[in-house]
Amino acid sequence: MVGKTDSNNTLKGHKLLIIAPWDAPAGFLEKLSTSFPDLQVVYHVQTWASTPLPPATLPAGIWDDVTALMTYSTLPTPEEAPKLEYVQMLSAGLNHVAHEPMFKDTKVAFCTANGVHGPQISEWIISTYLAFEHRLPTYLDRQKQAHWDNSGMLNIDDSANKTIGILGYGSIGRQTARLARALGMSVHAYTLHPRPTPESRRDHGWAPPGLGDPDGTLPARWFSGAETADLHAFLGSGLDLLVVATPLTGRTKHLLGRGEFEVLGAAAGVGAGKGRTFVSNVARGEVVSTGDLVDALERGLVRGAALDVTDPEPLPDGHVLWGMGNVIVTPHVSGASTRYFERVLAILEVNLGRLGRGEELVNLVDRERGY
Amino acid sequence: MVGKTDSNNTLKGHKLLIIAPWDAPAGFLEKLSTSFPDLQVVYHVQTWASTPLPPATLPAGIWDDVTALMTYSTLPTPEEAPKLEYVQMLSAGLNHVAHEPMFKDTKVAFCTANGVHGPQISEWIISTYLAFEHRLPTYLDRQKQAHWDNSGMLNIDDSANKTIGILGYGSIGRQTARLARALGMSVHAYTLHPRPTPESRRDHGWAPPGLGDPDGTLPARWFSGAETADLHAFLGSGLDLLVVATPLTGRTKHLLGRGEFEVLGAAAGVGAGKGRTFVSNVARGEVVSTGDLVDALERGLVRGAALDVTDPEPLPDGHVLWGMGNVIVTPHVSGASTRYFERVLAILEVNLGRLGRGEELVNLVDRERGY
Repeated sequence: MVGKTDSNNTLKGHKLLIIAPWDAPAGFLEKLSTSFPDLQVVYHVQTWASTPLPPATLPAGIWDDVTALMTYSTLPTPEEAPKLEYVQMLSAGLNHVAHEPMFKDTKVAFCTANGVHGPQISEWIISTYLAFEHRLPTYLDRQKQAHWDNSGMLNIDDSANKTIGILGYGSIGRQTARLARALGMSVHAYTLHPRPTPESRRDHGWAPPGLGDPDGTLPARWFSGAETADLHAFLGSGLDLLVVATPLTGRTKHLLGRGEFEVLGAAAGVGAGKGRTFVSNVARGEVVSTGDLVDALERGLVRGAALDVTDPEPLPDGHVLWGMGNVIVTPHVSGASTRYFERVLAILEVNLGRLGRGEELVNLVDRERGY
Repeated sequence: MVGKTDSNNTLKGHKLLIIAPWDAPAGFLEKLSTSFPDLQVVYHVQTWASTPLPPATLPAGIWDDVTALMTYSTLPTPEEAPKLEYVQMLSAGLNHVAHEPMFKDTKVAFCTANGVHGPQISEWIISTYLAFEHRLPTYLDRQKQAHWDNSGMLNIDDSANKTIGILGYGSIGRQTARLARALGMSVHAYTLHPRPTPESRRDHGWAPPGLGDPDGTLPARWFSGAETADLHAFLGSGLDLLVVATPLTGRTKHLLGRGEFEVLGAAAGVGAGKGRTFVSNVARGEVVSTGDLVDALERGLVRGAALDVTDPEPLPDGHVLWGMGNVIVTPHVSGASTRYFERVLAILEVNLGRLGRGEELVNLVDRERGY
């Protein structure tokens, strides 16, 4: 529907204000105008969007008839923008605006950019995992010697028929599942809340068209539950790759510690030094107990790890993790993508269409749940 | 069907001799005996299979009633094994036995291990490409400094909506296409012979169940033709990743040279230093003209390259390719997999079933075509 004119949905009477750190991509405003001929659009570039705009920056009276706003941190008061119906955040989270009266004291629809990180972070997960399995760090080092050396070349374990466990089955986990299935892996998902029905397994958030797992049909097994035993059932299910992709909450802090690594080691069914599971953390460092992870790596309870996030972060100079031969550490870079803005604008387009048709918006924040 | 007894297909009167450099995997012989209760099996481990067994190694008379043989290089004469019907090669090619009378002078069915390399080599292709795009070599170098450094961190180009071109759409190309589709890429295939019908696009070779592109439906565009203009139409179709996965023949030697790299550069529609295409060669070094590739990398006609094969090979010490910042070289290791033998045995099982039912064998060599 997007990109075509729906004569019943011209967004007559609506005004959209976009405050973004980038210029509009070529053709975007024209496309918007074709889709919604009666929508008024004001585009304001704010180079550094992490702090709200000083009040006098925008023309006086600009908020009066704004009904839709795309922003990172600038929000009017409820009195300034009495007609505001929909705020499209440029970020996946909104902790940084949760104190704003517009969020706290109104029922204006706030929508996140959830889903924009799926492609790049799932690529980071799979590329670090495959790089490890295919010994790419070793071969890159050998390349530096400018000498052909396949001595000690070992057969690698490819991924066909292996098992991936995905802790937190959101937009990143779902796209990772898609890649893992293409590699021939079996997918085990874990979510806090049970998902017993097809409807409960659906992805209600935004995902780039054709990617992710919109119907939640990729997992061969789906684990859930808040008890330690529930988590351990998942961790003990025979995982070759464990992806940590759960939000950091009070409940998930240090979710993976000594007891969990021992379950992974026991599930491998082999002695010390023969760990089966490669642990990949793209969530937050604090979800994993760093000391226990180091211990598990040293004891061979796990096979290796790729960490884009650490605890503490930044990882201190000389920390033992830097030098472990079976660990890849990158400095919290997995989410960066040149397609970021393009994807948030795609969410905006979907939501403008829904706004005009009176449908529920995608990525709508549930204020009680907080995300 | 495999693994279950088919009471009409017990392979009564058949004798299989396996000469392999590895022991049979646990349970394999039992499984074979369940599937084909009347099949007689003799298993001979030959640690180094690249040279034929000395004649006296095998018991006298062993060939007399052998109907099926799995081997790498040991072949009886037509007189020694008068009942031989089917030879399952342990290798994907059979140039090394093409001079044998059993191959030259009989109509015994020879089948290759074609398809066993798909998973591991497609993983090598995708992992080197994603490692390059996600700047993994840079971050691995930074890790060695044991210091958190995300300075100069740039947005990466993820693969969603990019285009992959696959030159040679066999078992490796088809599994690479599967991975690329999961990443959100559009697939352009190129084959020498046109594939205008659904039947012509099917994969008639073996592939691990659930992998590859058995029906040939993944490519959005399918190019073919023996003329330079045909190849250039493919190369000019807007490729972000070009995978070279064609056999080396008289026709493919130096298939990619100066003219082809200029087409890639022109298709990028940008000036020098802004190449779009990343070139990945897993075929044979000689398919690419090395000097022209180096020139294209230096002129920015292409974005970078990953080479598991080179010309000359081994790549000489100190060769300019070793030190290019946008090139990954590995020493011809992409085909190694711990699953190799398991996959050849799967082909053997499929073919034993077909042999008993009188069906055409999979991976059957066409002696005229030579593969």
